[in-house]
Amino acid sequence: MLLEETYTYREIHEQPQVLARLLERERPAAQALAAALRQRQVDYVLIAARGTSDNAARYAQYLWGAVNGYVVALATPSLFTIYHAPPRLGNALVVGISQSGKSPDIIAVLAEARRQGALTAVITNAVNSELARQGDFVLDLGAGEERAVAATKTYTAELAAIALLSCCLAEDGTRWEALRAVPDAVAATLSAHADMTQVTRRYYAMRHCVVLGRGYNYGSAFEIALKLKELTYTVVEPYSSADFLHGPLAVIEAGFPVLVVAPSGLTLNELRHLVQMLRERGAEVLAISDDAELLSLAHTPLPLPQPLPEWLSPLTCVLPGQLLAMHLAYARHGNPDQPRGLRKVTETM
Amino acid sequence: MLLEETYTYREIHEQPQVLARLLERERPAAQALAAALRQRQVDYVLIAARGTSDNAARYAQYLWGAVNGYVVALATPSLFTIYHAPPRLGNALVVGISQSGKSPDIIAVLAEARRQGALTAVITNAVNSELARQGDFVLDLGAGEERAVAATKTYTAELAAIALLSCCLAEDGTRWEALRAVPDAVAATLSAHADMTQVTRRYYAMRHCVVLGRGYNYGSAFEIALKLKELTYTVVEPYSSADFLHGPLAVIEAGFPVLVVAPSGLTLNELRHLVQMLRERGAEVLAISDDAELLSLAHTPLPLPQPLPEWLSPLTCVLPGQLLAMHLAYARHGNPDQPRGLRKVTETM
Repeated sequence: MLLEETYTYREIHEQPQVLARLLERERPAAQALAAALRQRQVDYVLIAARGTSDNAARYAQYLWGAVNGYVVALATPSLFTIYHAPPRLGNALVVGISQSGKSPDIIAVLAEARRQGALTAVITNAVNSELARQGDFVLDLGAGEERAVAATKTYTAELAAIALLSCCLAEDGTRWEALRAVPDAVAATLSAHADMTQVTRRYYAMRHCVVLGRGYNYGSAFEIALKLKELTYTVVEPYSSADFLHGPLAVIEAGFPVLVVAPSGLTLNELRHLVQMLRERGAEVLAISDDAELLSLAHTPLPLPQPLPEWLSPLTCVLPGQLLAMHLAYARHGNPDQPRGLRKVTETM
Repeated sequence: MLLEETYTYREIHEQPQVLARLLERERPAAQALAAALRQRQVDYVLIAARGTSDNAARYAQYLWGAVNGYVVALATPSLFTIYHAPPRLGNALVVGISQSGKSPDIIAVLAEARRQGALTAVITNAVNSELARQGDFVLDLGAGEERAVAATKTYTAELAAIALLSCCLAEDGTRWEALRAVPDAVAATLSAHADMTQVTRRYYAMRHCVVLGRGYNYGSAFEIALKLKELTYTVVEPYSSADFLHGPLAVIEAGFPVLVVAPSGLTLNELRHLVQMLRERGAEVLAISDDAELLSLAHTPLPLPQPLPEWLSPLTCVLPGQLLAMHLAYARHGNPDQPRGLRKVTETM
């Protein structure tokens, strides 16, 4: 099978259109949710999500925290399912994020939130799902069916839905204009990395690696790590650069591959120092960035051709990671669509 | 140097006394904090911690959630430090957990909480630290100086402080009695694993592994993984068993080592199914459990000789992991006290 005929390839390349459509269609729904949040004077936000959607939730932690002033907690679904001891949710907004809308544990958290009278919202690609029925408000990803097991277009669509709500809460025209530039930047980034022959060759035999990101791109590190695990079976550990220094740094030895997600912004300075330290220890550095100096420190620079403000950078930063995982998978075992041992919908409790 | 002369060995074996002392001395402080929590009718809890202390915070998420009804959020310190955009904390209890009390980012979160008028508490081994000064209430670990770089006795002391507060909030004599049995169970578990010669031999060359836990022992999986990384430089990934099924399962191939933390309790059934599935895929299974059937499924059973109720099981479940990491480190490079590239206090922003 040609790579271009795989679902993974096609879905990755659908991202610019999916994002443009979402930003156009879902603004009214996001505005209605923003109005409800203001009216209810919600105290904090609780998000229930698993896998890729949980990585999108990490983005919401930073964006809704830094820009909109909300503490965002990530739910521990087993309190609701296995332990049958849900906590008091109080005046929270409870958000479920799930591509399929079918995960029983995420549905259980939202159902309990409704029972307790909390405001609920659902971000999903399945507006007729059981999960969607639990949402007072629903943001429809509208990404079209995702047939590859590893989620790509629904991940960036989830990020866009999260950014859209943030813009509607902030009521700031500049932010809205920046958000509208995202689909073009995504297209430009995919084009810039159309040829990954050399990178694929260099990391063909990679058995393990570490992915580092911080702040807005903490979730990007997790999502790139997850794609590499799902598609290439590499043992990959994601960290915030701060957590990495609290112990895991010890695993680095000469030649150890470290992928750093380091776009321009407030975290760049710290990440530059970290890359310098990693180089001194002989690590093999891959860097996703739009900063020329940072890219020059990497063995494998993965440039971002069309920079976005830091708060939107996760929408492009993840793309070289998606492409790297896909190309490595295709080179190694020929079928990125169907990783061994995985199904599209994972029904956990 | 003899293993018995290392700080790591001595501090691991000090744990029964440290825990007994903490439970005896800190009850009044925990009761005062519990009274303040009830009086303020706190809406939710926010914990700021890094590294080992963050793994203790994961235990608090489940225990304070399931037993005491609080939603527990883990702070994203960079919002307070790098982005200078702290969220509105509202009527939260904000808890800082740090052995040294010196981490600037944790101090920054607590200082902002005070500025906003939130209730604050600090769990630390350094009652005269800058962090302790930010706490309306302080729980003193009283573990004595911890000189090994990898934290062991302060980790279980942090768990005990968290359990102590839970007991004071629950006002349930049965729970208090169960908690008082912990130091003995810890001593019995350490004795049961005094000889790790065979296990050390079997995993001497292990390059990577996965550690799985769920619910109360989600944090145990993270802490065991961190000890293995810090001390033995193995590439180790911790997961909740639910998250593991959402993608990372793909990395498992024949002979891949998986350590499962599976004591008796509500999560045992799910973990038993998972171990059976892992065996079918040819994984090499290590199991920490008091359940005979589960232990019989493992290549390397690591039994818990003195079972505790599930909510206290993290205090013994971590011990075979600490011992395994220490013995592997000693066998591999002779010095568990000073892992390459790490310092005792990591001052991150």
